[in-house]
Amino acid sequence: MRPLPGFRDFYPEDCARRGYLLDGWRRVARRYGFVEMDGPVLESMELYAKKNESGAEILGQLYQFTDRGERDVAMRPEMTPTLARMVIAKERAYRKPLKWFSTANFFRYERQQKGRLREFIQFNADLIGDGSTAADAEAICLVIDLLREFGFTKDDFVIRLSDRKAWLDFLGARAVADTKTVLAIIDKIEREPEESLNAKLSPHGLTVAELREFIAAGSPEYFAPLLEQFEARGLRDFVEIDLSIVRGLAYYTGLVFEAFDRGKSMRALAGGGRYDDLLADLSDGTVNLPAIGFGVGDVVLGNLIEETPHAFAKMAAALAASPSAEIYVVIADDSRRREALSLVQALRDAGWRTDFPLDSVKVGKQFQTAEQLGARFAIVVGNEWPIVKAKTLATRAEATLAQDALAGWLAKNKDCQQTDSSS
Amino acid sequence: MRPLPGFRDFYPEDCARRGYLLDGWRRVARRYGFVEMDGPVLESMELYAKKNESGAEILGQLYQFTDRGERDVAMRPEMTPTLARMVIAKERAYRKPLKWFSTANFFRYERQQKGRLREFIQFNADLIGDGSTAADAEAICLVIDLLREFGFTKDDFVIRLSDRKAWLDFLGARAVADTKTVLAIIDKIEREPEESLNAKLSPHGLTVAELREFIAAGSPEYFAPLLEQFEARGLRDFVEIDLSIVRGLAYYTGLVFEAFDRGKSMRALAGGGRYDDLLADLSDGTVNLPAIGFGVGDVVLGNLIEETPHAFAKMAAALAASPSAEIYVVIADDSRRREALSLVQALRDAGWRTDFPLDSVKVGKQFQTAEQLGARFAIVVGNEWPIVKAKTLATRAEATLAQDALAGWLAKNKDCQQTDSSS
Repeated sequence: MRPLPGFRDFYPEDCARRGYLLDGWRRVARRYGFVEMDGPVLESMELYAKKNESGAEILGQLYQFTDRGERDVAMRPEMTPTLARMVIAKERAYRKPLKWFSTANFFRYERQQKGRLREFIQFNADLIGDGSTAADAEAICLVIDLLREFGFTKDDFVIRLSDRKAWLDFLGARAVADTKTVLAIIDKIEREPEESLNAKLSPHGLTVAELREFIAAGSPEYFAPLLEQFEARGLRDFVEIDLSIVRGLAYYTGLVFEAFDRGKSMRALAGGGRYDDLLADLSDGTVNLPAIGFGVGDVVLGNLIEETPHAFAKMAAALAASPSAEIYVVIADDSRRREALSLVQALRDAGWRTDFPLDSVKVGKQFQTAEQLGARFAIVVGNEWPIVKAKTLATRAEATLAQDALAGWLAKNKDCQQTDSSS
Repeated sequence: MRPLPGFRDFYPEDCARRGYLLDGWRRVARRYGFVEMDGPVLESMELYAKKNESGAEILGQLYQFTDRGERDVAMRPEMTPTLARMVIAKERAYRKPLKWFSTANFFRYERQQKGRLREFIQFNADLIGDGSTAADAEAICLVIDLLREFGFTKDDFVIRLSDRKAWLDFLGARAVADTKTVLAIIDKIEREPEESLNAKLSPHGLTVAELREFIAAGSPEYFAPLLEQFEARGLRDFVEIDLSIVRGLAYYTGLVFEAFDRGKSMRALAGGGRYDDLLADLSDGTVNLPAIGFGVGDVVLGNLIEETPHAFAKMAAALAASPSAEIYVVIADDSRRREALSLVQALRDAGWRTDFPLDSVKVGKQFQTAEQLGARFAIVVGNEWPIVKAKTLATRAEATLAQDALAGWLAKNKDCQQTDSSS
């Protein structure tokens, strides 16, 4: 009776944390003028086979099968193929640039390890139809603000910027023909022993030492206009140049970047880049739009929040501010249940999260439930009806009033709540 | 380049409508003290095969396959099996009753027809651990308020109440042994010709006429305490007794209900019932909790909103109140782009949905874009910086002020916006 390995159950407390991420992502993306889209969980295999540029690795991890109508289908492993399909089908209906984001779940049959699941959630944002440095900055600043939203500062994370154009110019100057293979080797430069890398580089007339020298030089001329944009926005401290980033996917054409946590583990929190040729490739040239996009996964970000005290405290405060009940209606006299029900309905109609005992329960137990639910207020309905008692649970402050004066009392005490609970 | 048949692309305008449903569902469920949960999209086949009580029909529609680890798996066709699995695994960790809801997507390989898709979204709510009439009322009032939230009134929809206990008592009095089969026949009473129903009923010693007579009598004694609860909440007009409802799933044990639109089509908008034995059955008796639950699908509800003018107007107003940009920063002098960027960043940091032109564009065109995006305000940055112009687009009202006075101006004009746009 457990979920499949690599899949998660979201009990209410897990779902609340997931909601904290999703709500934060959506809020920030909307501040940037991005609008939400989504596609189906299941797609035709053709979509992924056609875009084999995304790499054989993903194809080998697909949840892929034949449906009851004999179609070869797969559960989506990433958003880009669906996004590209949708943009190509209807791009004329939309003003450019498109600023689209999504918060969706993806499926990859991966070996299980920390930070890797078989079903995971990813925020994706893509800015399509503008190839400018301004668009690059808009995408990267969105990454920065997505992370700042959860309380992270420049001491917690950094965006590393790189550019495939810099690498292609470097490789061109050395007359390297098979740039695709060499970029894939460079992608492993931090993760593979130097000896094995040198063996792979040697047929291309390159050494790890040369590559490291190029990385160390940093090619500042490729990044100057972009860095100005971060200066203007006051976000310069969040980015640094690091040419060792090249990203795994084959379709990137220019700027590529990854967000890392600055802690020991240096996990990638987000990654993306410019893919100016992909839409043209997939549409046989009929839709030719430059694009930049990135993804942020829920698992690594969630782990980092848990491990970072100020980010964790921010999450805990946000979750506490959204209790499952704001008001608990205490029924002190069960002969007044009918009146209590009418009050519950009125409070809910007014927008209050309201709960009450379904059965006859001792008053002390009802107050205990109210506190366990995180309620701010308890309203006691007893045989004095239509006079009720209204209590602020944090302060134990109490008022006796007619039930039709309750709306006013709640409105007044709602605003005092912050002060009350800290006193 | 299209989605698979029965699957949907959610372009931004579709996603906004989906969000309108999801947000409304969540808001109302939380007012009722329900908390959100979710499970994985993919489950072990075992989970569905074990609960074959849900009916052979669903098993025949499963997206089912063998994964790369040789596991028999299926994409979830409904939430109840996952919910039951999760509750059985951890119920001791939670105060009873559980009030859990979810908004999830489900997958069924169905023949395509209006209102039926192969991937659809459903709101589910379950109240577990309380077998009282008060719990029944809590669940049904939640259905009513979920529909009222979208602007529907008692003239638009009705909840039809029935009770399997009434039927079982009726069949028991007539010594019918195979109640399961007979309930399945009753389920078809509105959809199959009388002749064919009579042929099926005859081996059980029953006729359609007898059943209709029982339905017409309505067994009011089974519903009196429940109806009192609706009276107390002022929701009596939203429900009526209709014993022709028995629901298709085999696991229901008592109250069953469906919400119908009152229009010609009389489509079911929601349905559910009490399943007091299911958790005990699935846990071999180790978890014995009464439960009531229901589901609301997105497709029929979405269609009904589109077809009902007052519900459609409510949705349109809600979507218009959430434009993709609230503020558009017009860059009148490109030499001030750096200052404009700093302003954009400050506005976003303050929580405003803010957009601006990535490239150098004529001022008139920028104002046009601002209006197309639904922005309330345009802030014009030109060579008078740090003096800017702030415009309310609906009224064309304009102010000239220092950029550091902008926050105050926006706060003031934000509240006037409703009045402004209607004047």
